[in-house]
Amino acid sequence: MNGPVAVRTVDTADMRPLAERLFEELRLLSADGAGVTRECYADSEARALDFFRTVAESHGLICTVDRASNLMVTLPGDDLSKPGLIIGSHADSVPHGGNYDGAAGIVAGLLCLIRLQAQAVTPERPVRLLALRGEESAFYGRANTGSRALFGLLTANDLNARRQGNGRTLAEAMASAAADIDAITQGEPLLSKGLASAYLELHIEQGPVMVARNLPTAIVSGIRGNLRHRRIVCRGEAGHSGTVPRWLRRDALFAVSDLMMRLDEHWSRLLERGIDLVVTIGECGTDASRHAMSRIPGEVYFSFEVRSQSYETLEGFYELLHSECRAVADQRHVTFEFDERIYAEPARMEPALIERLKSLSAGLGLATEVLPSGAGHDAAVFANAGIPSAMIFVRNRNGSHNPDEDMALDDFLQGVELMYAFALTAGS
Amino acid sequence: MNGPVAVRTVDTADMRPLAERLFEELRLLSADGAGVTRECYADSEARALDFFRTVAESHGLICTVDRASNLMVTLPGDDLSKPGLIIGSHADSVPHGGNYDGAAGIVAGLLCLIRLQAQAVTPERPVRLLALRGEESAFYGRANTGSRALFGLLTANDLNARRQGNGRTLAEAMASAAADIDAITQGEPLLSKGLASAYLELHIEQGPVMVARNLPTAIVSGIRGNLRHRRIVCRGEAGHSGTVPRWLRRDALFAVSDLMMRLDEHWSRLLERGIDLVVTIGECGTDASRHAMSRIPGEVYFSFEVRSQSYETLEGFYELLHSECRAVADQRHVTFEFDERIYAEPARMEPALIERLKSLSAGLGLATEVLPSGAGHDAAVFANAGIPSAMIFVRNRNGSHNPDEDMALDDFLQGVELMYAFALTAGS
Repeated sequence: MNGPVAVRTVDTADMRPLAERLFEELRLLSADGAGVTRECYADSEARALDFFRTVAESHGLICTVDRASNLMVTLPGDDLSKPGLIIGSHADSVPHGGNYDGAAGIVAGLLCLIRLQAQAVTPERPVRLLALRGEESAFYGRANTGSRALFGLLTANDLNARRQGNGRTLAEAMASAAADIDAITQGEPLLSKGLASAYLELHIEQGPVMVARNLPTAIVSGIRGNLRHRRIVCRGEAGHSGTVPRWLRRDALFAVSDLMMRLDEHWSRLLERGIDLVVTIGECGTDASRHAMSRIPGEVYFSFEVRSQSYETLEGFYELLHSECRAVADQRHVTFEFDERIYAEPARMEPALIERLKSLSAGLGLATEVLPSGAGHDAAVFANAGIPSAMIFVRNRNGSHNPDEDMALDDFLQGVELMYAFALTAGS
Repeated sequence: MNGPVAVRTVDTADMRPLAERLFEELRLLSADGAGVTRECYADSEARALDFFRTVAESHGLICTVDRASNLMVTLPGDDLSKPGLIIGSHADSVPHGGNYDGAAGIVAGLLCLIRLQAQAVTPERPVRLLALRGEESAFYGRANTGSRALFGLLTANDLNARRQGNGRTLAEAMASAAADIDAITQGEPLLSKGLASAYLELHIEQGPVMVARNLPTAIVSGIRGNLRHRRIVCRGEAGHSGTVPRWLRRDALFAVSDLMMRLDEHWSRLLERGIDLVVTIGECGTDASRHAMSRIPGEVYFSFEVRSQSYETLEGFYELLHSECRAVADQRHVTFEFDERIYAEPARMEPALIERLKSLSAGLGLATEVLPSGAGHDAAVFANAGIPSAMIFVRNRNGSHNPDEDMALDDFLQGVELMYAFALTAGS
């Protein structure tokens, strides 16, 4: 299963079977029964990166690993002192996720480099593929760890976060994957900004808009930022379910439900006013070591996330969270304890690059629609670090972060054509 | 430590030091380091019963053991063919429990019999003390085994249940304590109903109401039954938290929160109408193997429990649960899946006996408040077997089933005064 994919000569007609085989091999080496799991800074992510390296090298490409242990793939003879286009995406997945979230962008980049190499085409500027680690927040809370490390943006709190709350720390996991943890801890930039004249990422759409609007490909206008807490703890008082009357209860679960319905009401009102906003409590539960059917829950934990393209909306809704927590605390005699607030800035894609992608799309007979990205992407980190960035979306059914992701290969190959056209003209 | 308590003549003034010494001796012989443990049908429970027997006999009372190996204490000359008042409570405790849950009722009954004997008072009807075994469910799952055995109510499942899931069976434990296990297995009633004209139990309150309302003693209106589900599963659809707009979400957690707030609203309204009701969702959570901060929860499990003294209220609220689940399912595009419904019958205390306790309380200058019992008691078994039953609650801090139970001796002695007055007029 993990042997090299033996393709020696490549032209456009080879792209389709090669893409198909790459996705299938990748799925098999990441399969977890339900879907795929490629855990950041763990064996399953490393296996995917090793696979990409083997494929790249078997096609005569050059592989190096940066100090954040991301994989860089370049054409032979690439002069790394010159700025170029970085095609980036991430190798990791959420637990029990799908095969395309992240990997599609890496496979697309690989196909472009393989095609450039096979056709002995020299683009105007160097084109490099960066296979990033740790884009997903599922294991350690902080998203985009692989790209943030490159810009010295991981905080001590990020690095000390434990795997799913009680496992090893992110720093330990990164160190075990041979990242330069001392440099990362000191916030040293690991990517020379001169290396990247632009950043381009291809990604499946993770929402339902492109299916609804019949768009095989689309161009991204901007990326929603978010404000998050991995863990907020509501504390009340445990008690015998039969003997404590309602007026003496400090039920942490009714309190959290109350809070959620208040937030739901605000959310609904804000949407009516045309404000861009999604709110998610992805994790919530009573304490499994103490709870019982006949015990009033004294403690409930939950995560919190609000996403918007607008900084003001994020901060406004975050203030609503706190004011409603105060109101619930007052009325239901509980307390709320917040862990560190995690902020991911919204990001605008570079207007000139958007225009170029629209014009290339039109030339290729592809859709030219421009859509916002509801999900976060490493492209936001690059854009906010000052590198002109752009994204190509590929239509996908059933969302992402689940085993049912469904991207048609035809749609994907249209996205790759657009990427290839962009790469060829990277200096223009 | 286990020697007889040498008290020979007793009057009212002697009650306080005697009670103090009985509780202290009992605590010492049951101490387990943290609190007390008197395991049903095991040595620690037997030591407590032996202690009660020794105390009773040293005061000239007569002790016998019934076929369920409960201890019966009577006055000399008691004609057991005549119906009388049974003062009952249980000798066992949960592991690492407190000294008063159960034992307070036995000590109270002992003090009453000792006082009747010392003062050579003959009540209108015989007064008997029944020190029951196995009221707590902690070791074998089934509560009230000592009283249920008397009415032939232990099932094969009850008797085959193993100690904490994997030890010896309840039947083996009962047999080792010299119970007539053949008769019990066959469901033979072991207590002649003619023996008991009424049943009275004194117990510490296990909730916070009497502390909050400053009631040293109270009279119990009834014992709450309950309707339960161990596990209800709400299923929606998982999805990426950033990309699915509110109108396309099927968020299982918002759905369960919505359900809980609807139930909370009904609960609150029903309480305003004076209806006895407590509602508890003791266990709830997103699926820890799949949830993530950035994933819309597709599945949430929760337990459900409603307790009330009224069968109609239980069934009515249970119907509300189902109708609100239907409404939430419809509005939020989720489904609810229920496991087996578990039912425990409520028990009403006898109105005439409640009235008598109120009137006696008033005469003694004690509180006359009538409160429901949220926890189960052997009195429920006697009441549902058709024996007019009543309960006296004594104020207690910190709940029960823990070493911090805290009953003031003054409060207890007020309860004993009320019990004594009741015993004196048992036939009226």
